[in-house]
Amino acid sequence: MSKQQIKKVAIVGGTHGNELTGIYLIKKFTKIPNFIQRSNFDTLTLLGNLKAIKLVTRYVDIDLNRCFRSQDLQNPNLNNYEQIRAKEIAQKIHQEQVDFIIDLHSTTSDMGLTIILNSNHPFLLKLATHLTLINPLVKVLQYAAIPQNPPYLRNLCPLGLAIEVGAIPQGVLKAELFHQTEILISNILDYIELYNRQKIPNTPNNCTVYRQIGIMDYPRDNYEEIQAMIAPEVIDYEPLHPGSPMFLHFDGKISVYEGDSIIYPVFIGEAAYIEKKIAMSLTLKHQVNY
Amino acid sequence: MSKQQIKKVAIVGGTHGNELTGIYLIKKFTKIPNFIQRSNFDTLTLLGNLKAIKLVTRYVDIDLNRCFRSQDLQNPNLNNYEQIRAKEIAQKIHQEQVDFIIDLHSTTSDMGLTIILNSNHPFLLKLATHLTLINPLVKVLQYAAIPQNPPYLRNLCPLGLAIEVGAIPQGVLKAELFHQTEILISNILDYIELYNRQKIPNTPNNCTVYRQIGIMDYPRDNYEEIQAMIAPEVIDYEPLHPGSPMFLHFDGKISVYEGDSIIYPVFIGEAAYIEKKIAMSLTLKHQVNY
Repeated sequence: MSKQQIKKVAIVGGTHGNELTGIYLIKKFTKIPNFIQRSNFDTLTLLGNLKAIKLVTRYVDIDLNRCFRSQDLQNPNLNNYEQIRAKEIAQKIHQEQVDFIIDLHSTTSDMGLTIILNSNHPFLLKLATHLTLINPLVKVLQYAAIPQNPPYLRNLCPLGLAIEVGAIPQGVLKAELFHQTEILISNILDYIELYNRQKIPNTPNNCTVYRQIGIMDYPRDNYEEIQAMIAPEVIDYEPLHPGSPMFLHFDGKISVYEGDSIIYPVFIGEAAYIEKKIAMSLTLKHQVNY
Repeated sequence: MSKQQIKKVAIVGGTHGNELTGIYLIKKFTKIPNFIQRSNFDTLTLLGNLKAIKLVTRYVDIDLNRCFRSQDLQNPNLNNYEQIRAKEIAQKIHQEQVDFIIDLHSTTSDMGLTIILNSNHPFLLKLATHLTLINPLVKVLQYAAIPQNPPYLRNLCPLGLAIEVGAIPQGVLKAELFHQTEILISNILDYIELYNRQKIPNTPNNCTVYRQIGIMDYPRDNYEEIQAMIAPEVIDYEPLHPGSPMFLHFDGKISVYEGDSIIYPVFIGEAAYIEKKIAMSLTLKHQVNY
C-alpha cells in the first residue's frame, strides 16, 4: 500500500440530474461544510449535470457518466452539453489535484447501500472491507473485467468509487437512505483521515465482492418492445438459482434463469437502464483476498 | 340510480408518459383483448400522451391531465402538444359515446391500490363500496370540493375514475402491482356487466372515503429551494397526529404537524408533485352514507 497521502477528496452529486439524494447531500455539505471537513485533507463538493439537475432528468443529450473516456475528453469534436460538461469536470478534478472521488448515485432497484469500486487498488479493497465490517448493510460491487478506459466520472483519478443507494425513485428524496448515505460518506472520510495518519484499523485481508459477469436484457419483440416484467422472486443481491422464474411475460408465459450456476442479480429493473437494454446486472459473489 | 345502460367503457393508460403500469396494461389489452371483453358493453383502449410515452417522461410541454377543462378544450389558441392531444382525446371519447372512463396512473408514493372518484355519483360510490369489500387493499380517494370544471381526463364523462397504484418509480414496471391493477380493472368491468343486467350485488349504503382537504408543500427557502425531507413516520393512509414529525430539515431541525385534528396524508413525496409544490395531500377519513 502506497504511503502517499490523500490530500484532496471530491464528492460529486447530480452526475444524473434526477438522483436527488446526491444532489441534496452536496447542497447540504456546501451549506454546512463542517460535516465533510477533516484535519488532514481538503474536500471539495461538485454538482455534475447542472442542466439535467434543473430539469430533474437523468441527462439532456447523453448520459454524462459515460463521457469520461480519456480519448473522448480530448476530442474537440464531441461538444454536446454532457460532452462539454465532462471536460469541465475533468479539468476541475485535474486542476484541483483531486486524489479521491466519491460519486453519489441512487437507483430505483433495491440495492441498499452499495459501493462500486473502480479498480482492484488495495486501498479501495481495504476501505471496502472496513466499510462492510462497520455496517453490514454495505455491499461491494465490482466490474469483472475492469475496462482499460472506463467512461465513468469516478475513474478520473486512480482512487474512486461510486455510492449507489436504493430503492429510490427518480425525483424522490427518502430521508432514511439520505441519512444512511451521509453516514457512509462520513465513514469514508474518517478512514481517509486515519490513513493519512497511518492509523487505519486492522482488517482481515479479504472482502466479499459482487463481481459483474454480464447483463440480461428484457425479452423484446421485433420492434424492440418489452415483452415481460421481472419476476418478483428476483431480488437484488439474493441468489438466483438455475430454473428459477426470471421474467413474467405479458402473455402469461414465464421464462426461467437458464444458466447453470447461482448468480446474484443487481440493478434489477433500474428505470434508467431500460433504454440501455439492461433488465438486471448479473454478478458472482466472491471472497477477494488481497 | 339511473337505469341507463353503460354501453362503452374507455380504459386509458399513459396519460403520464413515465407511468409504465398503465401503458403496458393498455398494450397488453390491445394485444389480448379477451381480458377486457364483456357480454353487454364495449371497451376501448387508448394511450394518452403519445410523445411523452416515447420519451418516458411525464409530459412534453404541460401536464396532459390538467388540460381537460371544457373552456380549454374549446379554446383554439391553446395549441401546445398536450393541449392538442387533449382535444383529440376528448373528441374520441365524445365520438365513441363513452359512458365510463378508467384512467390508469401510478405514483412513487406508497398508496397501494387507490381509486380516485371524480364525483359523488351514487353509481361510483356503490362501485367503490363493492371494490373495497372484495379487496380490502383498495382505498377510495375523493376531492372534498369537487371543482365545477375539473381539468382531469377522467371527467370527460359523468362516470369516471382514476386508478392510482404505488409505490412504483417513474419508468419502472412492478409485476405484483401490475397484476393487482389488472385484477382491479377486471373487477370494475365485471361490476359494470352485472349493473347492465340489473344484477349488482347488495352492498351496505356506505363507504370509507379519504377526502382531500388540502395540500402541504415542502419547507422552502427564498429561492424556492426545498429545505427538508418528509419524515419517515409520515405514511400514506396512516393517521398523522398533531405534534408528530412531518419534515426533517437538512440543517437538523424537525417540523411537526401543527394541525389540531388527525389527518391521513396521501401522495407522500410523489416525484411529479415537487414542481407542483405538493409534498403530500392531506385527507380526512370519512364514512360516506349514500
